[in-house]
Amino acid sequence: MSEIVELRKARAKAWFEELRDRVCTEFERIEDELTGQLADRPAGRFERKDWKRPSDAGEDTGGGTISAMRGRVFEKVGVMVSTIHASFAPEFARQIPGAESDPRFWSSGISLITHMQNPHVPAVHVNTRHIVTTKGWFGGGADLTPMFADPESAAEFHAALKRACDAHGTDYHARFKKWCDEYFFLPHRNEPRGAGGIFYDQLDTGDWEADFAFTRDVGLAFLEAYPHIVRQTMNRAWTVEDRQHQFVRRGRYAEFNLLYDRGTQFGLRTGGNVEAILMSLPPQASWP
Amino acid sequence: MSEIVELRKARAKAWFEELRDRVCTEFERIEDELTGQLADRPAGRFERKDWKRPSDAGEDTGGGTISAMRGRVFEKVGVMVSTIHASFAPEFARQIPGAESDPRFWSSGISLITHMQNPHVPAVHVNTRHIVTTKGWFGGGADLTPMFADPESAAEFHAALKRACDAHGTDYHARFKKWCDEYFFLPHRNEPRGAGGIFYDQLDTGDWEADFAFTRDVGLAFLEAYPHIVRQTMNRAWTVEDRQHQFVRRGRYAEFNLLYDRGTQFGLRTGGNVEAILMSLPPQASWP
Repeated sequence: MSEIVELRKARAKAWFEELRDRVCTEFERIEDELTGQLADRPAGRFERKDWKRPSDAGEDTGGGTISAMRGRVFEKVGVMVSTIHASFAPEFARQIPGAESDPRFWSSGISLITHMQNPHVPAVHVNTRHIVTTKGWFGGGADLTPMFADPESAAEFHAALKRACDAHGTDYHARFKKWCDEYFFLPHRNEPRGAGGIFYDQLDTGDWEADFAFTRDVGLAFLEAYPHIVRQTMNRAWTVEDRQHQFVRRGRYAEFNLLYDRGTQFGLRTGGNVEAILMSLPPQASWP
Repeated sequence: MSEIVELRKARAKAWFEELRDRVCTEFERIEDELTGQLADRPAGRFERKDWKRPSDAGEDTGGGTISAMRGRVFEKVGVMVSTIHASFAPEFARQIPGAESDPRFWSSGISLITHMQNPHVPAVHVNTRHIVTTKGWFGGGADLTPMFADPESAAEFHAALKRACDAHGTDYHARFKKWCDEYFFLPHRNEPRGAGGIFYDQLDTGDWEADFAFTRDVGLAFLEAYPHIVRQTMNRAWTVEDRQHQFVRRGRYAEFNLLYDRGTQFGLRTGGNVEAILMSLPPQASWP
């Protein structure tokens, strides 16, 4: 690996960790600000837990940190960063760009999922990553899952992502929004998982700096839009019936993640960290 | 299809429906007998709902009936019978005995899953079916999922299934118990789904009457053991903490069904009845 590639890896990793820290700080601030239902409970705080990737030969192949909070606004939120270096199994290597001849890869990324106490606050999922084989690319996205139709929150979320996309490619938003709509869809229910957002993968325009800047801007767009959406909705009153509806919607979320999500399937089948992968599952769900 | 095959199909179908009726009657009787927690609620009763299998060309390809009860002992129980006749898609036909040259099949079966109010009452899953292509066979099984270790209930359940197996083949119980243990296993958790039972498939010994009798005996063994297990455990006191534990165990159950269960995956990907397939999912589950 050349010096420039090593420097890029270090910068990408540092960004994902910085984004994690900024998200955690902002989410804890929101916990403090609650005035509506559950404000009598103590504000939540993140707890961190490191994990090491198990390796057959005993060498260091990296690991990650789970930052999890069970709070009064964020019923369960996990912010996972991981940086690993290993080799793809032969059957995977064939499907991965640049891994056909050399199965070694390096991967760093951030993944976060929120499940909210208040059914009127949308859940969110964000994930960005940098993967290096003999090639290198970025991937990720962000999508919003309101429990009740919430065109205002959805519009704000889409607008922030569109601004991030428009700054980097005229076709980015249209392409990545469509990709998201197609990906986060439950065919057996014939329904989308949520209100969408963007999804992109194997982004390698030939300009690493630009691709990295775009990936940073996706994270910043999320940081601009989502905390504001939470603050706008978190003090709305809700009922036991609203909460039941939320549990049913979360059942759909679990269905998607366990039946279709490629990251979940890939992670579980390749010995990924089970706790980190399944942090996405809802604290309470219902199939009544 | 010869007359004898048609007669066999009719007899298998009639048995699955008879077993359904006997199970529903017994479960409603149990609802009436509760004296412990929740006995102030009304006893549950089954409700039936028919569905027709959608067919591209508009012809009748069969359907089924969902019998569902939301009760005070049985928080959610579904007893599904279905009888369908259609053609396997080419990619499936190749994997199915007797369907290589003629993709048409007939299938009839019963499938039932219980999720109990009292965390001290084990959940159960039973499924038996008869499938006819140019060949014909039986498959199915029964397995128990206690929420807390319950060696007494597990022993009673295994003993009843062993008696049914022993009456039909000296190696049946050992083979089918092992098959069950291997099938109902969560590799990513390195844990079994429950306490096991038996699982068998493509049973075609050449003696249709014997194979059918075995399949009936599996249903009768279930009817002998499970209602007794429920009666032994349903009046035990439980706490909110016990219930939380139950919700977590049910999360594991949902993980298995959505990640690994071949019937669920097959059904959802081949346009099966979504409501019937997903009746197996728990009324409440938790990933805390």
